[in-house]
Amino acid sequence: MSDKIFVFGHQKPDTDAIGSSYGFSYLSNHRKVGALNTEVVALGTPNEETQFVLDYFGVEAPRVVESAKAEGVDTVILTDHNEFQQSISDIAELNIYGVVDHHRVANFETASPLFMQVEPVGSASSIVYRKFLEADVEIPREVAGLLLSGLISDTLLLKSPTTHPTDHKVAEELAKIAGVDLQEYGLAMLKAGTNLASKTADELIDIDAKTFELNGSKVRVAQVNTVDINEVLERLTEVKTAIKSYMTAGDFDDFVFMITDIVNSNSEIVEIGSHADKVEAAFHFKLEDDHAFLAGAVSRKKQVVPQLTDEFNK
Amino acid sequence: MSDKIFVFGHQKPDTDAIGSSYGFSYLSNHRKVGALNTEVVALGTPNEETQFVLDYFGVEAPRVVESAKAEGVDTVILTDHNEFQQSISDIAELNIYGVVDHHRVANFETASPLFMQVEPVGSASSIVYRKFLEADVEIPREVAGLLLSGLISDTLLLKSPTTHPTDHKVAEELAKIAGVDLQEYGLAMLKAGTNLASKTADELIDIDAKTFELNGSKVRVAQVNTVDINEVLERLTEVKTAIKSYMTAGDFDDFVFMITDIVNSNSEIVEIGSHADKVEAAFHFKLEDDHAFLAGAVSRKKQVVPQLTDEFNK
Repeated sequence: MSDKIFVFGHQKPDTDAIGSSYGFSYLSNHRKVGALNTEVVALGTPNEETQFVLDYFGVEAPRVVESAKAEGVDTVILTDHNEFQQSISDIAELNIYGVVDHHRVANFETASPLFMQVEPVGSASSIVYRKFLEADVEIPREVAGLLLSGLISDTLLLKSPTTHPTDHKVAEELAKIAGVDLQEYGLAMLKAGTNLASKTADELIDIDAKTFELNGSKVRVAQVNTVDINEVLERLTEVKTAIKSYMTAGDFDDFVFMITDIVNSNSEIVEIGSHADKVEAAFHFKLEDDHAFLAGAVSRKKQVVPQLTDEFNK
Repeated sequence: MSDKIFVFGHQKPDTDAIGSSYGFSYLSNHRKVGALNTEVVALGTPNEETQFVLDYFGVEAPRVVESAKAEGVDTVILTDHNEFQQSISDIAELNIYGVVDHHRVANFETASPLFMQVEPVGSASSIVYRKFLEADVEIPREVAGLLLSGLISDTLLLKSPTTHPTDHKVAEELAKIAGVDLQEYGLAMLKAGTNLASKTADELIDIDAKTFELNGSKVRVAQVNTVDINEVLERLTEVKTAIKSYMTAGDFDDFVFMITDIVNSNSEIVEIGSHADKVEAAFHFKLEDDHAFLAGAVSRKKQVVPQLTDEFNK
């Protein structure tokens, strides 16, 4: 095994997963004291939004790895996730050197003490930005651009309830270093990720999807961003077929699919599975034809997963 | 439920558990931005070492609570621990606002994002000290004294391998604020915790003991500090009887008892239970009459628990 440390975000990487891991790897290698030998890698290829960001700032996508040990690496740093089922395939056999995350903590365990910084802020990229300031390491333009994009992506341009009061200043400062206009760049970036028409139903339900263990049930929660919810609802029949195949293949109990309107900040929730009653109770709505409107909901992490967790634990 | 937040260390509190929780509660209440309404409480009464510290700095022991909800509190901050079995009885039903810890992370789960800062340093008190500096909050003498004592206790006066390079400066700075001579105060404090002769065998095995779930086995790992290992070994027969009763009552698979010489930095390991072979393999020694000498071992966290975890997982 080499002394190299892999830094990566979660499976099905989104812009914050790529941005925070890219930034934290750069920081780790450039610390004035205690610099590490890290390489940023990814657990999947960039989505369209992230590819827009990478192209905009002239950064190559991190190479995709499936296993650390197969690459001769046994030590890793996780960004933007901590749950093992969202991580690299051999995570349980690796030394976890550190974690930088902004999610709940669950299904995570180490044999030894580690560095772990979790904060309930808008993006893992926000935390990485603060780590640059603490370490007094200069942030190159493209790193600032990737961190800013991670924050914009996860907070839907600072409009999601996951946005932390401190994130506004972080966004302003990063936009300045990246040399972009926050609003103009942010909207262009988000729109780049809403091109759903070209996608098959199988692709739609897998753009940004995570698996959760809720009191013994295996639940997939997927989300797509759009500027027109109806455009997706018109394809509901094929989407449901795709979901059912996916559930059978992966032995899932439930599949919750969020179709999020990034302009008006609402979502339509599709639920397929054996716990429709729990999903209805969690969101205080009635499903019709397996879906229902959830006003004001844009955040899976804050407005969907905790409510499902509470309800499944009852 | 009130808006009050409880701050506490682990069950069977040691000096770092009390010191870090006392300090972090003070800091949380005195932040210039985002101050909280917290109360420091404890999950048990202070041991003799900690009582020495409290008396020395004129601080009253935090009141002991068994359940947060019974006190009308539903939100908590954990210091110096994260594993639920080491925490308050109703931990699984509470909101965990934050964690400040220096242990491995395991058996820990939240429904929502939180503040969590874990660092592989010598004490949770070291992290709390840095948090004071970051927040630019002045540290009162007695708070500095408790934090310093937490660090001295957990690192055996900076001699344990758990001591982090940064801990030496932390100790110096805290000693200055607390107005004590580090070496002189540190030795007096450690000796106050080694008065074992007055203790029954039942008390000995419970002074500083933690439960771990190792690959499905329930393992108790206890530690006592002494200036004379033989003084404890002479009582081995009654100690073993006490351990066996304790294991039956608590349905434990194994009980590992560390008798640590704080002057020469070695330990004698007593193992009772069904996995003596794993304990022998973990430490590369042969047990005789259920015990064996482990040269250089003073840290349960770094020199015992990871080795046991690895071996039990094989």
